[in-house]
Amino acid sequence: MTAPAIILSRPQMGENVGAAARAMKNFGLTDLRLIAPQCGWPNERAKVLASGAGDIIEKARVYQTAAEALADIRLVFATTARGRDILREILTPEAAARRLRAATGEGLATAILFGGERAGLDNDEMSLADAAVTIPTAEFPSLNLGQAVLLIGYEWLKSADATPASRTRKTVAVPAARTELVQLFEHLERELDAAQFLFPPEKKETMVRNIRAMILRSGLSDQEVRTIRGMIVALVRNKYRGKI
Amino acid sequence: MTAPAIILSRPQMGENVGAAARAMKNFGLTDLRLIAPQCGWPNERAKVLASGAGDIIEKARVYQTAAEALADIRLVFATTARGRDILREILTPEAAARRLRAATGEGLATAILFGGERAGLDNDEMSLADAAVTIPTAEFPSLNLGQAVLLIGYEWLKSADATPASRTRKTVAVPAARTELVQLFEHLERELDAAQFLFPPEKKETMVRNIRAMILRSGLSDQEVRTIRGMIVALVRNKYRGKI
Repeated sequence: MTAPAIILSRPQMGENVGAAARAMKNFGLTDLRLIAPQCGWPNERAKVLASGAGDIIEKARVYQTAAEALADIRLVFATTARGRDILREILTPEAAARRLRAATGEGLATAILFGGERAGLDNDEMSLADAAVTIPTAEFPSLNLGQAVLLIGYEWLKSADATPASRTRKTVAVPAARTELVQLFEHLERELDAAQFLFPPEKKETMVRNIRAMILRSGLSDQEVRTIRGMIVALVRNKYRGKI
Repeated sequence: MTAPAIILSRPQMGENVGAAARAMKNFGLTDLRLIAPQCGWPNERAKVLASGAGDIIEKARVYQTAAEALADIRLVFATTARGRDILREILTPEAAARRLRAATGEGLATAILFGGERAGLDNDEMSLADAAVTIPTAEFPSLNLGQAVLLIGYEWLKSADATPASRTRKTVAVPAARTELVQLFEHLERELDAAQFLFPPEKKETMVRNIRAMILRSGLSDQEVRTIRGMIVALVRNKYRGKI
C-alpha cells in the first residue's frame, strides 16, 4: 500500500517546499512531486528547512504540467481555500483521508494537489481532480503551504491510527481491586470516626458516601491505595505523637 | 463561552511564539499566555512571524510559573511527545478537544499547556494538568511548537465544526429531478438505437442499464442534463450533415 503523493503546483519559496517535506515525514508520506517550481530546483532552502526529511527532497520529482505529474494517479483531491465557486464536491480533510485510505487499500495510486502560495490552483488543474478538499478555519484563514500539508498529512495518519481516544499506561495503572478500595474506605472511616471528623452522627452516612465517591472518581491503582493508606497511618501516628 | 488558553512554557524562539499565535488565530483561539519566556518579551521576531495575528501577541500575558499561569483554569491538558513514562491518562487531540469543548460549554476556563522547544514540560508542570495529550505521528516525530499548536487548534475548531464531510455548492449543483434524467435517458437511447449502437438486440437491455448507471453515478444537475442533451442534438445533427 503506497501513501498518497503530495503534489505542489508552482511553489514560490523553497522554504515552504522544505516545510512540506518535513510535515510529510511526520505522517508517513514520502512521494513528493513538484509542478513547474517557481523557486528553482534543486533548491538549497528547501533542503535546509526539510531538516530530517532531506531524503524526501532528494527524491522529489519535477514535472512541467499537472497532467504529467498526475499521469499514474487514479484518485486525486485538490486543496482549495473556502469560498471558491466551483461546481464540485467539497470534502473535509477527514473525509478526504478516509477515501484516500480506502483507495490505497485497493492498490490504487492516489494524490493530493496543493496550489502555489499566492494564486492556488488554476482551473485547468482543478478540472483534473476528483473532488476538492477545504480545511475548516475561523474567519482568519491564512494557512501557508507547509501548514496545509501538515493538516492533510495528520488526517491521513489519523485515518488508520488505532490509538484509543483515551488511555493510561498499563504497566503502572491497573485499577485497584474493589477489595483494596473497601479496605481503604474502612481504614479511613475508622480513623475519621476516631478523630470525631464524622460529626454530627445524623450526617455521618452522607459524609461517608461523599468521601467514597470522591475517592472512586480518581481511579486509583493498587499502589496508590497503599500509598494513601500509608499516609493515613503516618498522619494518625503523628497526631498521637503530638499528644503524648 | 471562552476558547481554551494556549500556554507556552519557556519558549526559546520568538519565531515559534509568532507561529503559534498565527496558528491560534486560524482556529478561533485568542488567549495566549507565556511562562518565563526564554526568548525575551516583548519580542520582535514573534510580532513579525505572527503576521495577521499581531493582536494575540500584543495581548499575551507573561507569568513566572505554571501555577500562576493556570490560576483561573479549571481544566488543563498538557501536550507531550509519546513514549513519556507518566502515570496519567493520555488523550488523542480529538478526544482532548471534545472534552475542552464540553467544559467551555459549561462555562469553565480551560487551557492547553505546551513545553519549550528542547525540553518540553517538566514534571512539576505535568503534575498540574488533568491529562496528557499526544499527537499521533509516524516514526519521525519532529513537530515544532507552531505545528503542535496548529494541530491542537485544528481539532478544537473541528470539535464544533458543522461542515458536512462532503458537500457540493448548493447554488449551482441541485441534483437533477428524476424526470429530467429520464428524459435524458430516453433521448440518448433513442439516438443510440437510431445509430445502431445498441446492438446486438439481446444485449441491448444490459447496455442501456450500464449506460444509465454510468450517468447516474455522476450526480448531474438540471443544467448539466440540459448540456448533455444539447451535446446529443449537436452530435446527431452533425452526423446527418456529414451524410447529406
